Amino acid sequence: MKLIAFDADDTLWANEPNYINVKLTLCELLSHYVDEETLARQFYDSQIRNLTVFGYGAKSFMLSMIETAIELTNGAITGAEIQQIIDVGRKLLDFPIDVLDGVNEVLEILSKQFDLMVLTKGDLFDQESKIARSGLGHYFKYVEIVSEKNEQTYQRILQKYQVQPADFLMIGNSLKSDVLPVVHIGGRAIHIPYETTWAHEMVADEQLSGKLFTTLGSVRELVAFLENITELM
Amino acid sequence: MKLIAFDADDTLWANEPNYINVKLTLCELLSHYVDEETLARQFYDSQIRNLTVFGYGAKSFMLSMIETAIELTNGAITGAEIQQIIDVGRKLLDFPIDVLDGVNEVLEILSKQFDLMVLTKGDLFDQESKIARSGLGHYFKYVEIVSEKNEQTYQRILQKYQVQPADFLMIGNSLKSDVLPVVHIGGRAIHIPYETTWAHEMVADEQLSGKLFTTLGSVRELVAFLENITELM
Repeated sequence: MKLIAFDADDTLWANEPNYINVKLTLCELLSHYVDEETLARQFYDSQIRNLTVFGYGAKSFMLSMIETAIELTNGAITGAEIQQIIDVGRKLLDFPIDVLDGVNEVLEILSKQFDLMVLTKGDLFDQESKIARSGLGHYFKYVEIVSEKNEQTYQRILQKYQVQPADFLMIGNSLKSDVLPVVHIGGRAIHIPYETTWAHEMVADEQLSGKLFTTLGSVRELVAFLENITELM
Repeated sequence: MKLIAFDADDTLWANEPNYINVKLTLCELLSHYVDEETLARQFYDSQIRNLTVFGYGAKSFMLSMIETAIELTNGAITGAEIQQIIDVGRKLLDFPIDVLDGVNEVLEILSKQFDLMVLTKGDLFDQESKIARSGLGHYFKYVEIVSEKNEQTYQRILQKYQVQPADFLMIGNSLKSDVLPVVHIGGRAIHIPYETTWAHEMVADEQLSGKLFTTLGSVRELVAFLENITELM
């Protein structure tokens, strides 16, 4: 293995719970206009629609919250209420980073044996800030923040670092972004599920059929697993 | 010269005029609430304040427009009016790219002799989209989109590509972002001023005193200039 890349959000630290909390607060703020279910559905639609224009990340999320609020209130929402939405959304840009259990210890060990990379999609400024706040930056030789994690992205990165797919291992919580595209280009992938997954990152079971990857219950299992497969190679 | 990097906005294509147009439309939208001068001042303050939280780029600009509008109307602005602001701001994410005069010809020549890089700061998604829309992507061997262009950024990139500062040339329209930090780390820089410069990118004359860089009137002068200095090296 020449290069081991880790996804960041919900692989190295908790992220999705912060977004879920902000969505709950949005529901409360708009509760006299709209019921929770309608809001959740409309907000998800707005997020997906806006992905192709705004990309991923906190600012995109904030703009989608504002648009949804305006749409669902037929423009009746006040400026002051929108400012409340912005203030809630800002929390996504500076929440304290909760590094997941075992991550520090595992990175400490692996960084001595392998070149490690953070490979995350999202908003450049936002993701850089989270890496800095996590205190994990020094374990990683490389950081790559990309706008989308698909086969082309992984191919481009492997080319840039002159690493063969078979020498590349990706570790992450998203089957859609961290596992399937890597397996498709001939790389190796380890899936470490997180307690919650954003609906957009879910994949149907049939997409996984016949695909070769490993699922681990926790990042703590990584060191023993890598020792085993390295012996076999 | 091993690596020649080009700034993108207002170096390869026109960018600032689109932002100026959107600001003018914001003034019109809010003209019954506030005069142009107050709006311009407050909006600039909001942008600078938000830079450290949101970073550069169109989404950050949109959020600052919304906040300024709410602030200046004491929250009286309606949701429908804020939607108009968002719709105007969206234009920043898909305006047709106006490649500057001479850029295509010069890149065609230089890309045959040198490794070229786009080195731009801003929003990842936004900048990638502009590179794609410009049709210039194939001239560049590397693309680096960064959240800030300071000495640390340039040092990190040179290290990553294993290029010595003396073998690096940066070309751009911003003295603050493209010229001074490069000169400070021992690299070479060429300043090609654009017709308008955002106030935040301006530098005081005394900061330029004693700094060795070249100013060219147009990108067209680049080929002859590089032939001359390459002969001398």
